[in-house]
Amino acid sequence: MSNSQESVHKVNFAPPRVFTATFKSHAKETLFPDDPFKQFKNEKRPIKKAVQYFVPIFEWLPKYNLKLFRYDLLAGITITSLAIPQGISYAKLGDIPPIVGLYSSFVPPLIYAIFGSSKHIAIGTVAAASLLLAATIREKVSPDAEPKLYLSLVFTATLITGIFQSLLGFLRLGIVVDFLSHSTIVGFMSGTAIIICLQQLKGFFGLTKFTTKTDVISVLHAVFKYREEWRWESAVVGLIFLAFLLFARYLKKRNPKLFWVSAIAPMVTVVVGGLFAYLAHGENHGIRIVGHLNRGINPLSIKDLNFESQYLPVTLKAGVITGILAMAEGIAIGRSFATLKNYQTDGNKEMIAFGMMNIAGSLTSCYLTTGPFSKSAVNFNAGCRTAMSNIVMAIGMMLTLLLLAPLFSYTPLVALSAIIMTAMFGLIDYEEAYRLFKVDKFDFCICMAAFFGVTFITMDVGLLMSVGLAILRALLYVARPATCKLGNMPDSSLYRDIEQYPMATGIPGILILKLGSPIYFANCSYLKERIMRWIRDEADITNAKVNEVEHLLLDIGGVSTIDMTGIETLQELRRTLEINGIKMGIVNPRMAVMEKMILSEFVDKVGRESFYMSVDEAVEACRFWLQESKVSKSDFSVHPTVV
Amino acid sequence: MSNSQESVHKVNFAPPRVFTATFKSHAKETLFPDDPFKQFKNEKRPIKKAVQYFVPIFEWLPKYNLKLFRYDLLAGITITSLAIPQGISYAKLGDIPPIVGLYSSFVPPLIYAIFGSSKHIAIGTVAAASLLLAATIREKVSPDAEPKLYLSLVFTATLITGIFQSLLGFLRLGIVVDFLSHSTIVGFMSGTAIIICLQQLKGFFGLTKFTTKTDVISVLHAVFKYREEWRWESAVVGLIFLAFLLFARYLKKRNPKLFWVSAIAPMVTVVVGGLFAYLAHGENHGIRIVGHLNRGINPLSIKDLNFESQYLPVTLKAGVITGILAMAEGIAIGRSFATLKNYQTDGNKEMIAFGMMNIAGSLTSCYLTTGPFSKSAVNFNAGCRTAMSNIVMAIGMMLTLLLLAPLFSYTPLVALSAIIMTAMFGLIDYEEAYRLFKVDKFDFCICMAAFFGVTFITMDVGLLMSVGLAILRALLYVARPATCKLGNMPDSSLYRDIEQYPMATGIPGILILKLGSPIYFANCSYLKERIMRWIRDEADITNAKVNEVEHLLLDIGGVSTIDMTGIETLQELRRTLEINGIKMGIVNPRMAVMEKMILSEFVDKVGRESFYMSVDEAVEACRFWLQESKVSKSDFSVHPTVV
Repeated sequence: MSNSQESVHKVNFAPPRVFTATFKSHAKETLFPDDPFKQFKNEKRPIKKAVQYFVPIFEWLPKYNLKLFRYDLLAGITITSLAIPQGISYAKLGDIPPIVGLYSSFVPPLIYAIFGSSKHIAIGTVAAASLLLAATIREKVSPDAEPKLYLSLVFTATLITGIFQSLLGFLRLGIVVDFLSHSTIVGFMSGTAIIICLQQLKGFFGLTKFTTKTDVISVLHAVFKYREEWRWESAVVGLIFLAFLLFARYLKKRNPKLFWVSAIAPMVTVVVGGLFAYLAHGENHGIRIVGHLNRGINPLSIKDLNFESQYLPVTLKAGVITGILAMAEGIAIGRSFATLKNYQTDGNKEMIAFGMMNIAGSLTSCYLTTGPFSKSAVNFNAGCRTAMSNIVMAIGMMLTLLLLAPLFSYTPLVALSAIIMTAMFGLIDYEEAYRLFKVDKFDFCICMAAFFGVTFITMDVGLLMSVGLAILRALLYVARPATCKLGNMPDSSLYRDIEQYPMATGIPGILILKLGSPIYFANCSYLKERIMRWIRDEADITNAKVNEVEHLLLDIGGVSTIDMTGIETLQELRRTLEINGIKMGIVNPRMAVMEKMILSEFVDKVGRESFYMSVDEAVEACRFWLQESKVSKSDFSVHPTVV
Repeated sequence: MSNSQESVHKVNFAPPRVFTATFKSHAKETLFPDDPFKQFKNEKRPIKKAVQYFVPIFEWLPKYNLKLFRYDLLAGITITSLAIPQGISYAKLGDIPPIVGLYSSFVPPLIYAIFGSSKHIAIGTVAAASLLLAATIREKVSPDAEPKLYLSLVFTATLITGIFQSLLGFLRLGIVVDFLSHSTIVGFMSGTAIIICLQQLKGFFGLTKFTTKTDVISVLHAVFKYREEWRWESAVVGLIFLAFLLFARYLKKRNPKLFWVSAIAPMVTVVVGGLFAYLAHGENHGIRIVGHLNRGINPLSIKDLNFESQYLPVTLKAGVITGILAMAEGIAIGRSFATLKNYQTDGNKEMIAFGMMNIAGSLTSCYLTTGPFSKSAVNFNAGCRTAMSNIVMAIGMMLTLLLLAPLFSYTPLVALSAIIMTAMFGLIDYEEAYRLFKVDKFDFCICMAAFFGVTFITMDVGLLMSVGLAILRALLYVARPATCKLGNMPDSSLYRDIEQYPMATGIPGILILKLGSPIYFANCSYLKERIMRWIRDEADITNAKVNEVEHLLLDIGGVSTIDMTGIETLQELRRTLEINGIKMGIVNPRMAVMEKMILSEFVDKVGRESFYMSVDEAVEACRFWLQESKVSKSDFSVHPTVV
């Protein structure tokens, strides 16, 4: 056998790399894609560098100066004024004593400032995770009947979250968060925002009884079931606050420079509301208040942790699910700002930082914290430069706890409801949902699964449905990789999809297919059937007498990996084609694929002459064969037909 | 902006196809990859053709002739002689009355002959599925304590299997079977073979008490626990049979023409064993026999079906898991022979055929059947031409049931054990496991997970572990698509992986990356980090002063699909690169990717001039830019560095 032309370059049949080398490279790509250790090589003081790497405060603090501090101080004060009302509100949302919400903005930000690699995240509690945590633990323990036990389970779940997050970080399993897709988060956030808004009707109407369920139907049902409890005074006050907060938000939208108005508006609401309640004796007019808040910083909560086996399943579930969710939010917001300001955050390092702060938090009466979207955006807009703004906030919080805490006991619950509602409106992202619908229907389904799952079933079911659908899509992708037929672009040596470029023309007798990646067990039988169909279709199109296709060229340049079943399928395909008098050629295999083909002796069985560097070269070779066969065909009988 | 050269062809920016068109094409690829309805188009009598398609017997029977029948008769008789001992043996394995094993080779083959599309499958019971069925139902009901209930649950599970299989077939969900990879099946079969062999020690030593567990440790423990029951007579007879059967197998291996020796050897064993037991009164010497077998064909079993809610979970589990397993075996063997003889079997149609035969079977006192490897191989070797051989076997079986059944009551259990063991030896495929180890370590792990799971835990756990690992691998693939750096092959316009082809050279100032497929939410943050790392590495390699890379070209010709998160990542990447003074070019997007880029307005934001047909063309354009920038660089300041 000889090729029709001597090509300039030969396909590389070099013996495969040894297993340890490929394994090392795979492990590195999977677990260390950002190559964190590279910077320690060729470094004079690697230990100092390593400490700086793992504890970023050692890197930025020595270079810190007063000019930077001026920015961070302003940002820190701004987020403190947001942290107080948010802390109280979200704790209420999770049926947790309001003071714990304030505690949670003291210790965790300090820890994050030490270990975190983002410069713009502001640490605090989040609405969705608070509600999810509460919904999960309430399955087992009622916060009204056994408040002490409930709180201890909340701390335990937070500890589990912390351990889980650090573990994922240490094991470099940031990959877990990658499976929460953009579409899932959009749907989940919108759904959560809606149910949280509806739940605020409890505060609005001054209800004391309510449902523990989170779905829309139960919540609306509960609102109307207890309508004899409705208090118009509470609703009127609530509407006034809501109007004020929405106006502040509107101002920010109109003029982004006025972001500080909307940033301090919640604090204003709390102060004005508290004054009003105190002066007008709101309690006597149906305006319920937060109630007594003790002075003093976080007490230790180690002894409150509860690992009893009957509660462990529920705390584990709460800890792990809210942990993943909170992490996803924190890492995403960190990445966004890093992209804007052109630096890098390391997802795995961020997980360790989040984990550390939640572990420390759970021991000092804090519950789950992360880097929330809203607070971090305020921090960014307020001009923060480093994690120092978190330290400023923590100090502000400490002073509040030591001196001002009792003043906040008069905060009306309806003011908190208005604050939460306003925050939630921003999370209902119908524009993005519409965009998903326009561009990618499957993404839209994933988004809707999360949205309707959250609003009509429960939060965790909604999340799991959506993630399940996203994984199903990934598996479907693997199970049905797209093949396309290539044709020659006129006056060039390029071969392109003939559906995409109608001017590309096929070559009589030669069928060129570009295979999708990967070639795996899950798509092998599909692939074979699909290729046989291409061959039959080809015969139909050209309306040929007996057997039109004499050469099948498989362009596998895009196939990045193949498994054992895949190689066997190619071999089987070749046998079937041979019986039908069709020759098979392989074009441009990538290194990983080639190595496996050599190891499995596929190359030897098929013959090295069937491998080509490029489609153009393969077509040249086939043309030569076709001419030869035309000569011989006039002598011999025809090939058997393709079934 | 102008390109440095007028390229012959432009990238196709045609407006995307409408959603219904793409959805139809996706649905077709996913559910109808073999395009079964194509043959009805342009057909004069579409209804006749459709009936022939769905009920293949109408297609082949009219053309059937005596010459074909001669082959099928011989094959049919051969498999009947195998079906009798196998039927009794495997029924014993599943703690099912032996006569049910014989029934199961009568009705199901008849049904398969009508609906099945494979010409070479021989229908019958299988060892692994029998054991798995028994192991699952035994969790709830003991076959010794409540034999009647146990049997009714076996029939119910078979009905569920049948319904499940037909449903999958009708819904075109053959894709489910695709997820049982070659490696999983090798490991599962080997593991099952080992535990089945060990279980035969019960028959060998003539034990009456035994364990219901299937793992190696429990079985060996049980064998030694009851050692006072051991009977040497039984063991000696067993060894003699085993030696005879293994010799027959050896003969077949040495000379494949003698396959019939090994095919009738089990029948000879049963007959000789029966005669021996009858004449020597084996029962009195510790050689246990099958016991009374009634004359007569299958009684109806509709009234035996049991759908009580307390047993439903167990029958559902047994029906579905064994159903998938049996289907996978049957479809795989059908496909193999179809490939050898160059015709096509349709996986979804096969499922319907299997489903129909199991539904019919469950109503007529049969338990789970499929197309077993061993029996089908004998059928093939015996020269069968059509499914008629199954009809011959069914008739042979009917005659046996009507006339000869009582004669088989003297079959010694130890003979059955020897038959089962011999069949199992062939399934322990250590050579294939070694080959997997050599070629693909991950495939080997998947195989070992099934093997050790089955041998040391339980059969279903082993199967699930292995499938889980295979799915994890597919997800990991999606999460970490391989990128590589391309270089120019000397004296050509080809660009290839520089690691694979060391002679390929990079072009100063231009970094060309080939991205793996797909670009999905699960790999977006990885992809961005990886690309940034390539850029940093590039600066290191060339040891450049400030910023070596000025152009980044992304060859996405191999990327067959992208989702919303993916498009956003590319956009984010472009922003980051822009800040660093790097221009991004996109090379050869495929149709599906291009459509989404247009819909999401990515193309408009990036600009059409950033899209190129081929790497070569893109490099030309970049070279032009570089020359321009060199001129301007001498005037202006440098770009900021890459972090």
